[in-house]
Amino acid sequence: MNNYHFNKDTIAALATAHGSAAIAVLRLSGSDAISIADSVFGSRSMHSKELHKQLSNTVHFGVIHDDEIIQDEVLLTIFRAPNSYTGEDVVEISCHGSLFIQQQLLNLLVKKGARLANAGEYTLRAFLNGKFDLSQAEAVADLIASNSAASHQVAMQQMRGGFSSKIKTLRENLVNFASLIELELDFSEEDVEFANRGDLKKLIVTIQNIVVRLVDSFEVGNVLKNGIPVAIVGKPNAGKSTLLNTILDDERAIVSEIAGTTRDTIEDEISIDGILFRFIDTAGIRETNDTIESLGVSKTYEKIHNSAIVIYLFDVHEISRNELVVILDDLSMKLNGAELVVVGNKIDKEDLEYTKKEFFGLGEILFISAKEKQQINELKQYLVTLFDSRTINVTETIVTNTRHVEELRQTNIALTKILEGLSQNLAGDFLAIDIRTALNHLGNITGEIHSDELLSNIFSKFCIGK
Amino acid sequence: MNNYHFNKDTIAALATAHGSAAIAVLRLSGSDAISIADSVFGSRSMHSKELHKQLSNTVHFGVIHDDEIIQDEVLLTIFRAPNSYTGEDVVEISCHGSLFIQQQLLNLLVKKGARLANAGEYTLRAFLNGKFDLSQAEAVADLIASNSAASHQVAMQQMRGGFSSKIKTLRENLVNFASLIELELDFSEEDVEFANRGDLKKLIVTIQNIVVRLVDSFEVGNVLKNGIPVAIVGKPNAGKSTLLNTILDDERAIVSEIAGTTRDTIEDEISIDGILFRFIDTAGIRETNDTIESLGVSKTYEKIHNSAIVIYLFDVHEISRNELVVILDDLSMKLNGAELVVVGNKIDKEDLEYTKKEFFGLGEILFISAKEKQQINELKQYLVTLFDSRTINVTETIVTNTRHVEELRQTNIALTKILEGLSQNLAGDFLAIDIRTALNHLGNITGEIHSDELLSNIFSKFCIGK
Repeated sequence: MNNYHFNKDTIAALATAHGSAAIAVLRLSGSDAISIADSVFGSRSMHSKELHKQLSNTVHFGVIHDDEIIQDEVLLTIFRAPNSYTGEDVVEISCHGSLFIQQQLLNLLVKKGARLANAGEYTLRAFLNGKFDLSQAEAVADLIASNSAASHQVAMQQMRGGFSSKIKTLRENLVNFASLIELELDFSEEDVEFANRGDLKKLIVTIQNIVVRLVDSFEVGNVLKNGIPVAIVGKPNAGKSTLLNTILDDERAIVSEIAGTTRDTIEDEISIDGILFRFIDTAGIRETNDTIESLGVSKTYEKIHNSAIVIYLFDVHEISRNELVVILDDLSMKLNGAELVVVGNKIDKEDLEYTKKEFFGLGEILFISAKEKQQINELKQYLVTLFDSRTINVTETIVTNTRHVEELRQTNIALTKILEGLSQNLAGDFLAIDIRTALNHLGNITGEIHSDELLSNIFSKFCIGK
Repeated sequence: MNNYHFNKDTIAALATAHGSAAIAVLRLSGSDAISIADSVFGSRSMHSKELHKQLSNTVHFGVIHDDEIIQDEVLLTIFRAPNSYTGEDVVEISCHGSLFIQQQLLNLLVKKGARLANAGEYTLRAFLNGKFDLSQAEAVADLIASNSAASHQVAMQQMRGGFSSKIKTLRENLVNFASLIELELDFSEEDVEFANRGDLKKLIVTIQNIVVRLVDSFEVGNVLKNGIPVAIVGKPNAGKSTLLNTILDDERAIVSEIAGTTRDTIEDEISIDGILFRFIDTAGIRETNDTIESLGVSKTYEKIHNSAIVIYLFDVHEISRNELVVILDDLSMKLNGAELVVVGNKIDKEDLEYTKKEFFGLGEILFISAKEKQQINELKQYLVTLFDSRTINVTETIVTNTRHVEELRQTNIALTKILEGLSQNLAGDFLAIDIRTALNHLGNITGEIHSDELLSNIFSKFCIGK
């Protein structure tokens, strides 16, 4: 089924993060990887190390030189096909991590015949060479993007083939079923039934249960992967930036005494108890004539709309009970299903009981001091409880990929049609169409069936160097 | 002379740039590096790979696991002492470049007995194990920071020992001289002269010439390393941000139609013909009531003061000849030795001749259009000519390090004293004091003589992971 235009040329890219550091790693992959490396690599005195004679998985110290000019002292590692990430000959060059050197060496490799890699091209080649299937390849990107214990474990399980083997098992069961049906078609004149309709129905129901459970897992999976969006809203000077900073324990937002200082919408993430929360700082819910800031306000409503949790923060000294009632009424109409957490800020320890009485009866209100870091842990824990942790069981297979869940939904539709066909006693040739549809959608997930468009769609979202 | 408290424990750090990427590399160094790696590394099914039995410079594929939980699939490379960067046993772990994974693996290595490395500790250990001398170690940091062809070549030459061998030769010559003088001291009763005073004087003069040339090279070296500071100044809306962007060919400064938008001082660098220029964008030379912006204006004068080149940019349609005369008069008093480049912006092709006539006789003015990218290359080339390129000869040894030039200056003072002593026919014991002083200062450069304070001073400026 491999019909993707497969370039066999040798590609080069930076594999480590962009920036200056102790070392950086460049990666060459393709049939000329070793000969290109050989043409620029030598001993300290630039004598050839004859890399083509060196064993796979060995590391060599030497210099990269452009003719007589030494570019860097490096460590060079050889991986021979098929024992490499891509399944091709691969050379990794570990150089000094100067941006200038990284650029110079890449230029040199290109001059010697390599091509700069496209986004995701290493992983694409690994897939095309059968190093892993499509869902595993996609998990590589998820793994690199993972930023909490939960999303990391889900991606790791998927990369190591947990999800793939589940899908493959489903598909094999369906294939068995299909072959019996196809056999019937061959003997259609004789009106025999090789496939017991009762057994078949049981099998499809079983498969469908698994598919539905996988589809349902996506809601959890999506949150694990992308974080739970939390908006902090409130009047200017309610302490939103301070609260964000205190929660993130970091100076990521500009905090100022001047009202309306937070002009840009800042998104930031934090993992609490292994669950990722994505905080959204806003310019405050108020009308304003400042053009830059009014942009922020319209963004605020947009952010509320896209949040799973909305924290309404107010200064307990600046807002009356009646005013709060009006605000909460208004806010509750804009929530769009999000959980509302009402938080009173700037509490005085002495007046706390008095404050609590003032706002008593308006539902649960958490009283904190963002500046003095009072009751912040309690707020964090409250956020965790809002996301029902009982629904997360990472050891179960969880779908985190929009493409996968869409294929599973399509599979489910086909399975439902098969069940309808069975209950209507439809002939095998009618069932066969829906079975093939289900098989195709499952095959798309692991890439047993794939199109150029699908591959380009998936791998173009990868970074260069992956 | 090695009296630095040398920790033999095993250190761990991220060696690649901070960020998420295809891969990241963690480095373990120390006597337990291999056993610590062994305790967390295994085959895909977590069976031990018995790393202690593996050869040096070999790469192994497997997983990092914390007891039963798999953290990542990695490539692990073993370097056995003394054939490693630090001269100790070193293990490099090439993992998936997720920030989360990097953090988890570092935590795991620490849990298993490694210690997080201090700044520069890998290179410090390399120095203490005699892998290279102090000036070479310092060149590693310079190499990583290098961002132009010139600074890269200077750092590379220094790292590869070019500077060290020059200093060592000087020192050996002085040591020969010293031993003859010391011999005289042993026979001081007999009033013999083993060292011919004429030959000695010639030798010291030769050494001093080399030392003085090295000291003089520092001015060039400093510029090569840190870039030539260029300030762009001018009225609001003269097009300073646009010019900066056009030169940097990148959207690094916020460009806006609103006067006074550039609030922060932005520093940015570009290498033109291998020479590094460091541009300084400013908030415009004008008084303002906006508090954030007035900070920018006072910064402007500070930046002019610290620049080697000041570009005065003006809108040819918004300024009269008389006004320009007054501004340039005022500016020339604030230059502090910097070169002034006067640039008229927003030229119309049709009116160019008219414009040139209007400002004729006010010295050289370059006319450009930053927005239309007209005459920008001419401006760039003009900047290069301002920095006398004849003074750069990278194949010569160039001093780029403040510490080194200071030691060379002290050496020079001692050499002058020796020459004075020789011309006054001072006895050998008086000469010997100054000779030892000169030897000490030269020895400080390469670290043949070093103190704990010196080492901690040098390596604490390195990044962690180097």
